[in-house]
Amino acid sequence: MSDTPAPMSPERLQRMAEVIVKIGLNLQAGQDLVMTAPVAALPLVRQIAAEAYKAGAGVVTPLLGDEEITLARYRHAQDASFDRAADWLYQGMAQAFAGNAARLAIVGDNPMLLAEQDPDKVSRANRANSIAYKPALEKISNFVVNWNIAAYPGTAWARQVFPDLPEAEAVAALAEAIYKASRLDGADPVADWTAHNAALRQRSAWLNGQRFAALQFTGPGTDLRVGLADGHEWHGGASQAQNGVICNPNIPTEEVFTTPHALKVEGHVSATKPLSHQGTLIENIQVRFEGGQIVEAKATRGENVLQKVLDSDAGARRLGEVALVPHSSPISASGLLFYNTLFDENAACHIALGQCYSKCFLGGDKLTPEQLAAQGGNSSVIHIDWMIGSDQIDIDGIGADGSVTPVFRKGEWA
Amino acid sequence: MSDTPAPMSPERLQRMAEVIVKIGLNLQAGQDLVMTAPVAALPLVRQIAAEAYKAGAGVVTPLLGDEEITLARYRHAQDASFDRAADWLYQGMAQAFAGNAARLAIVGDNPMLLAEQDPDKVSRANRANSIAYKPALEKISNFVVNWNIAAYPGTAWARQVFPDLPEAEAVAALAEAIYKASRLDGADPVADWTAHNAALRQRSAWLNGQRFAALQFTGPGTDLRVGLADGHEWHGGASQAQNGVICNPNIPTEEVFTTPHALKVEGHVSATKPLSHQGTLIENIQVRFEGGQIVEAKATRGENVLQKVLDSDAGARRLGEVALVPHSSPISASGLLFYNTLFDENAACHIALGQCYSKCFLGGDKLTPEQLAAQGGNSSVIHIDWMIGSDQIDIDGIGADGSVTPVFRKGEWA
Repeated sequence: MSDTPAPMSPERLQRMAEVIVKIGLNLQAGQDLVMTAPVAALPLVRQIAAEAYKAGAGVVTPLLGDEEITLARYRHAQDASFDRAADWLYQGMAQAFAGNAARLAIVGDNPMLLAEQDPDKVSRANRANSIAYKPALEKISNFVVNWNIAAYPGTAWARQVFPDLPEAEAVAALAEAIYKASRLDGADPVADWTAHNAALRQRSAWLNGQRFAALQFTGPGTDLRVGLADGHEWHGGASQAQNGVICNPNIPTEEVFTTPHALKVEGHVSATKPLSHQGTLIENIQVRFEGGQIVEAKATRGENVLQKVLDSDAGARRLGEVALVPHSSPISASGLLFYNTLFDENAACHIALGQCYSKCFLGGDKLTPEQLAAQGGNSSVIHIDWMIGSDQIDIDGIGADGSVTPVFRKGEWA
Repeated sequence: MSDTPAPMSPERLQRMAEVIVKIGLNLQAGQDLVMTAPVAALPLVRQIAAEAYKAGAGVVTPLLGDEEITLARYRHAQDASFDRAADWLYQGMAQAFAGNAARLAIVGDNPMLLAEQDPDKVSRANRANSIAYKPALEKISNFVVNWNIAAYPGTAWARQVFPDLPEAEAVAALAEAIYKASRLDGADPVADWTAHNAALRQRSAWLNGQRFAALQFTGPGTDLRVGLADGHEWHGGASQAQNGVICNPNIPTEEVFTTPHALKVEGHVSATKPLSHQGTLIENIQVRFEGGQIVEAKATRGENVLQKVLDSDAGARRLGEVALVPHSSPISASGLLFYNTLFDENAACHIALGQCYSKCFLGGDKLTPEQLAAQGGNSSVIHIDWMIGSDQIDIDGIGADGSVTPVFRKGEWA
């Protein structure tokens, strides 16, 4: 292991680990940490463990996954295996979070890892894992504890993002892209993140003050009015978890986001970037909404996959999120398609099909599913972000009285 | 990761994985597998996952540990950390075993990893882990499910065993030593293990038929009579777990072993190999027993550590195991000190201070601790094997009527 060169210098790894522990997690003295990561991310995992212990961590538990072991299952396991999951491990994670352990996920696996595998087995294994992980995931999505997702440049992922570069150069290029996108390249990244969070907080506070009834998106191939849910609340950047700790759940993050009204979306919209979905690239999506629901959808590539997504359940044709990201964000400026939502959703304004976030309602933690639905919150088993922003998109805020306030002009805050 | 050369060829890794899965675990179709391993053992772990899935495993869950992360804790953690453990993970493992998951431990860490760390912190962390792991360990030591321990040549471990070789040669030499000691070097290792198990079963069956009252060890510096517990039972090689699966808990294994009588050990004995205990080498141990208890103990090196071990609790001066290993065993023939009990206890006849195994009593699974004690079973928080066999040791079996039966002559079965 010690012979594997890390794609980042020790200084960069240390910087990244420090920002993850101090800004991403804001790990508190005495808190345990449960960290999942690809085994290839070991150089970063080691540095994070050191930073976590420096911050006063109780016990750091790394759970290292491996692509080859995942593939070994698809190559060799009997059919019945694909309906099983390590329930005991996921239940234990839920127990750890209930005991105030913080949660860190390092992503970096090959986005196309299972693209060649039997889709039925993939879907059954995902479903078994989702069911087993549900009690733990609920504690994370309800922000019971502070948590964070960050990224490490895995080799196969790098080759996917930079298909024309030799492997080592692709990994170095992805490392550089992650480093910049994660706002680690300044003189004092912790201070830069503090300032970035303040700016995102200012944007969401302004939007919350406006209390727009809808957003109007206008641009090439797009004329879309997205009604906002009753009592919607904008969020962005740092969040306070129920244990009182203010954390940054995503590194990077550039978006401010809220909940659309499931019944009040009208018009047509064209995707501005391809959508990478479970190993398929869906290109040039164009859809039309009526009464909040997609009534027409086409794509120049992957349209059959898109149609399957839309048929997932009743809520899959309606919106669960709308998010604003300026075209000048570092990720957009990179011009890269990362094939990973953690990055790609921060490259452009986007909307998401499917499940809404209860957090994006005023007092949302205390609302029942029925109350959320009555206020316009959508419900679905899917939540799929797709990009509709570019440097040619204008956005207006429409008041309850029909007044029009410029929000974005040519892809930037107005 | 893919750039790290494995110290064993793919063919050897495959062979080792096959023997671990088929002979060590005897993994059954539909059984889940929980596997702990050093992250450096990843090439073997991957192969084991493949073999396990081929054998019909449900879900294989690897839990990969890392020496650097362990050390990061000792370097950076606050004092309170050392009384904490990942209870949720250990409780989860107990739950997995209760659900019939098989257990595999791959060892290979640096035996001296914590030798330079604060002994108080090491001892507190060990204690916290032991308490947390107890429910899971009890399921293993009571053979609720099939389990196995096997080894992979870690770099620091290899340097400890071969201090005079350059690193790469040391790792290759340890890999070779593990391969041979684990009886993998024949034409058909699965068949070789089946034959080896039959031989060990024959030895223990003969000893069980003899029902000796005591064993008399005679050799240079040794004149020791080890009384055997009432209703003792000899074991060796494969064991049947409570789930009905016959497994080989240790790879390698060369010993047949049973329970001495805690009150009936008399005479003096000299260790024939150094004892590696928590980073200290204890050399040339000589002790004298009276009424089952060590009343005199000395060593030419590490005597203070030996005395601390003997003062652990009331049972630490009495024996909990006696084991017979011929001097011609492959491990003994290697002439190596492995600094790892999995190997070193299979190099020579040995006795163990401390806790006895309930399994080594007729019907032992159903005996209470009080019944075990009444039959001569010892009880202690420690269980430390040390080697007293060599090519100059004779062993006689002493019958209840005082009759003498030769068992070993010059270190070999008589």
